[in-house]
Amino acid sequence: MKAAIVGVGLIGGSFALTLKDNGICDEVIGVDNSERNRAKALELGLVDRTASLAEAVAGADLVVLATPVDSIPLLAVKVLNQVDRQVVIDMGSTKQELCEVIAQHPRRGRFVATHPMWGTEYSGPEAAEHDAFRGRTVVFCDRELSDPDAVEFVERVYERIGMPIKYMSAEEQDTHTAYVSHISHITSFALALTVLEKEREEEHIFDLAGGGFESTVRLAKSSPETWVPIFMQNKYNVLDVLREHIHQLQIFRRMLERDDTEGLRTMMQRANRIRKILK
Amino acid sequence: MKAAIVGVGLIGGSFALTLKDNGICDEVIGVDNSERNRAKALELGLVDRTASLAEAVAGADLVVLATPVDSIPLLAVKVLNQVDRQVVIDMGSTKQELCEVIAQHPRRGRFVATHPMWGTEYSGPEAAEHDAFRGRTVVFCDRELSDPDAVEFVERVYERIGMPIKYMSAEEQDTHTAYVSHISHITSFALALTVLEKEREEEHIFDLAGGGFESTVRLAKSSPETWVPIFMQNKYNVLDVLREHIHQLQIFRRMLERDDTEGLRTMMQRANRIRKILK
Repeated sequence: MKAAIVGVGLIGGSFALTLKDNGICDEVIGVDNSERNRAKALELGLVDRTASLAEAVAGADLVVLATPVDSIPLLAVKVLNQVDRQVVIDMGSTKQELCEVIAQHPRRGRFVATHPMWGTEYSGPEAAEHDAFRGRTVVFCDRELSDPDAVEFVERVYERIGMPIKYMSAEEQDTHTAYVSHISHITSFALALTVLEKEREEEHIFDLAGGGFESTVRLAKSSPETWVPIFMQNKYNVLDVLREHIHQLQIFRRMLERDDTEGLRTMMQRANRIRKILK
Repeated sequence: MKAAIVGVGLIGGSFALTLKDNGICDEVIGVDNSERNRAKALELGLVDRTASLAEAVAGADLVVLATPVDSIPLLAVKVLNQVDRQVVIDMGSTKQELCEVIAQHPRRGRFVATHPMWGTEYSGPEAAEHDAFRGRTVVFCDRELSDPDAVEFVERVYERIGMPIKYMSAEEQDTHTAYVSHISHITSFALALTVLEKEREEEHIFDLAGGGFESTVRLAKSSPETWVPIFMQNKYNVLDVLREHIHQLQIFRRMLERDDTEGLRTMMQRANRIRKILK
């Protein structure tokens, strides 16, 4: 089987490695607007060769869209315009806009909208990792709008990688990822800015980083090129969760201002319920 | 050398293990109000024996206070009342209140206020870890108020563990830890509450946890018994940072509401500066 990977950065590059490592593809063709990324992907062995979008799509059984989410809808249309038997998937973190754009496309059935739940704070071909996806959940969106054979084909690919599959609507997926991924990134960005703003002596930030700061601020290293489009495409869900988050922080602030230790204790005990859910 | 560890939970228990593992102490005596914790510490081999506070202090060269920070000032006074040649340290995350309370004690010189920058989201003797402190920074506060021989003695202990030492005033340390530790915990607690509040289907939280949520919310598993006293003792610094953090989140919110992608990009690029500071 041959795959075309469009966007050979962190996600596309890691997925290319995964397809080869698991013997799912005998050839992976890389497509990228950036000449530097194409050269780097070849040099790092992420892809076997590079090609133009048209050429790669023509020669592939599976087309994987792994570019920033603001470019995916248009790219999906262009690729579907050219597709007959191929199956096309995307790996983006938001789905409503994409699914809306391709809804009326005569080849809509060849498209399977998937979101593999993996990422790191790094980006570009150099950030690609072997064995990144195994054990991670992959979300299939609006499965009923894809051809049954296309869904089955993509299910088999993810199953061979070892990824549990979850099915939901594009709308549900965008709501859930706002809660469990997008808000964490905003919090991290804001936390980094808070500390950079307040703490002039950067040396101290480094020295005292054992206290929990590193893990909560890790995501603030993430690329704006990836995340601005995600926040914009999922604007209403993200705003909804962000308002609730600010509200919770304001409750904390008021309790602290009023020395309400009982209130603080109760809030933190409620937060502790997360123990039961995560590990 | 013999050490008395007062409070054999996560921090005290781990420090007890470290003192034995590095051959610094031949006997570690555990003191704890909780009978369960004493029994557990013995069973897990964290301490060699348990004793009352008075008995343990009398028989020790080094007394280590590792209880929640609201109990440390009074405990410090009680221990200093009983001390002659011994050296007393604490491991608390806040120092101003403590240093103020013991300021006029005739044995103040025997006390060295230290904050080893390590912790996890777990608590109790069962959470104690081997080799937890190596490579972590330890902050010495108001060194000039301790006897030179006591400071030297404690420096040697931390050096043998392999911990870089940093010196600052109690006031500075409380400000810095508000930035690099305390605010991260509040953010995590608030984030857990946000998601628990919004996300009724807990199954989804678990399934979709690969998206960054886990690392930012990890600290929300932390114990209110440890953290309410820390927030209260460092109230003004924590409020100062918390207000700034809420302000940063509000800027994010407004930019998102207004589709200000340039503003978002600029903010996130500024936040990316944290890359240079943390690894």
